[in-house]
Amino acid sequence: MTPDDTPAAPRPRPMTRDQLPQGMWSHRVTFRHGQCDPAGIVYTPKFFDVFNQAIEAWFCDCLGLNYYELIGERRTGLGYVHASASFFSPCRMGDEVDIFVRVVKIGKSSYSLVLHAMLGEGEALRGDYTTVTTSLETHRPIPIPEDIKTALTAYYNETQ
Amino acid sequence: MTPDDTPAAPRPRPMTRDQLPQGMWSHRVTFRHGQCDPAGIVYTPKFFDVFNQAIEAWFCDCLGLNYYELIGERRTGLGYVHASASFFSPCRMGDEVDIFVRVVKIGKSSYSLVLHAMLGEGEALRGDYTTVTTSLETHRPIPIPEDIKTALTAYYNETQ
Amino acid sequence: MTPDDTPAAPRPRPMTRDQLPQGMWSHRVTFRHGQCDPAGIVYTPKFFDVFNQAIEAWFCDCLGLNYYELIGERRTGLGYVHASASFFSPCRMGDEVDIFVRVVKIGKSSYSLVLHAMLGEGEALRGDYTTVTTSLETHRPIPIPEDIKTALTAYYNETQ
Amino acid sequence: MTPDDTPAAPRPRPMTRDQLPQGMWSHRVTFRHGQCDPAGIVYTPKFFDVFNQAIEAWFCDCLGLNYYELIGERRTGLGYVHASASFFSPCRMGDEVDIFVRVVKIGKSSYSLVLHAMLGEGEALRGDYTTVTTSLETHRPIPIPEDIKTALTAYYNETQ
Repeated sequence: MTPDDTPAAPRPRPMTRDQLPQGMWSHRVTFRHGQCDPAGIVYTPKFFDVFNQAIEAWFCDCLGLNYYELIGERRTGLGYVHASASFFSPCRMGDEVDIFVRVVKIGKSSYSLVLHAMLGEGEALRGDYTTVTTSLETHRPIPIPEDIKTALTAYYNETQ
Repeated sequence: MTPDDTPAAPRPRPMTRDQLPQGMWSHRVTFRHGQCDPAGIVYTPKFFDVFNQAIEAWFCDCLGLNYYELIGERRTGLGYVHASASFFSPCRMGDEVDIFVRVVKIGKSSYSLVLHAMLGEGEALRGDYTTVTTSLETHRPIPIPEDIKTALTAYYNETQ
Repeated sequence: MTPDDTPAAPRPRPMTRDQLPQGMWSHRVTFRHGQCDPAGIVYTPKFFDVFNQAIEAWFCDCLGLNYYELIGERRTGLGYVHASASFFSPCRMGDEVDIFVRVVKIGKSSYSLVLHAMLGEGEALRGDYTTVTTSLETHRPIPIPEDIKTALTAYYNETQ
Repeated sequence: MTPDDTPAAPRPRPMTRDQLPQGMWSHRVTFRHGQCDPAGIVYTPKFFDVFNQAIEAWFCDCLGLNYYELIGERRTGLGYVHASASFFSPCRMGDEVDIFVRVVKIGKSSYSLVLHAMLGEGEALRGDYTTVTTSLETHRPIPIPEDIKTALTAYYNETQ
């Protein structure tokens, strides 16, 4: 027997810079030698690493929330229940991408982000992250803390 | 305005070991100190790293295909067009998981794998990877090489 | 002006397996795709990562000390004041090395390890690590805890 | 028997910013969540990673040499025969360091760099790297390419 060969769900299509919503904050990353593999392109898990770094920088530099204090003193977990990426074109060492952060959903104890990694005018890859806010003492969900919810909502409204 | 707060698509539910299909190959990973973060749990991108390592070990140790020769001398790309993970319960340093590899789809120039990471009796997280086989000279899709297709199909048939 | 071109201190010379002291514990590592770089060889910082992993495995599997409990509940820091490596021959993806752990010095609040990474019969690289035991509350040195000192000393005596 | 407890060679002492030679180029790094471990501090191998990244940025942004073309099209290896670091004070998530690059030796087919990682006014850690220039075809040493030697010498002369 052979597994089903029907087409999968339609893949997302890469966007161009001028198709992105206005006003989004972005974070520049240069892919270094050590992030690339012997195929000469960025090693897949490294994209998740730079997405995480972009989210942290966005909290600190755009939302005005100290990510490290949240995780540290406030013991608020910002872990993921789902993380995914779609890859449109390869990135090579020396390539620079701008990672644009978009808020797509704000719930009671979770929120979802989309990350557009733009290489030149085109989208090289796109990330989708869903965070559930938790207590790092119990690892149980908690309502999104008020200051985070306010900042996410304001950013959401400014970037539609 | 507030972004839509309707429920997202239903999340996958974690499985138990005895719900897994019979006959699947698995790869044991011990999470080390350096894979964990100040929240005390495994840093999300590290899960993608161990999934990649599990896939490589599965090629070499189960399918009988030398992953490194494929990427190296044969210049066959086994990159991903999509990679995702759903997280059910946190993993901590010292935890051991068994990563079970399942083939869910074999197409003309792509195939899809599901990775079940079992911590004790329960599923801690699950990965979904879709590979498109490419030429590493052109970075364009090529049909799945015959030896890979044969091995994937045999494994698929043995693990239903 | 040109910087001094006199020879540096003599470099260590690689050893063969039969020159290693008897009785040392070793840890096997397979270098994976994602640990290698576009030059086709292991990315230097990854060697320090596998050395750290080898030390953790040695604590747990050979010395009978739970590394994760030490760092976790006991809040004992096992950080390094010095770490170095000398590289004798390159490692490539798919290569397997056995990392042999040697204790070379046990002080009041510090100890030093040498790690011999053997690829086939020869030494591919060698690490030198000096740990200072600290309190993770104060990040100040503390005397080596008694159970660690006892285990290090016994291992030292068995591997001369 | 107990291993020798005599003092080791004197450890290097941390410098302050105003003790550094004038004119050195520096590279700013913010330590992120994923670079830190459950002890709450930067995981040792990550320092070697940021040192490598600093060296690449220094080639590209200061020396005017495209590091990625050197490794890529020109197939010139810039691997290390020795890498070491001495750690003076811990770095935590959110900390920013400036990594200053110093050339300390230029030989026929090797050169040595010192990297001073300054956290505030003090030196948090220091790296020492010795590179041997090689052909990536043969992995044998080659004389330092003329453009690299010229750039290294000019930088050396400007930063004494």
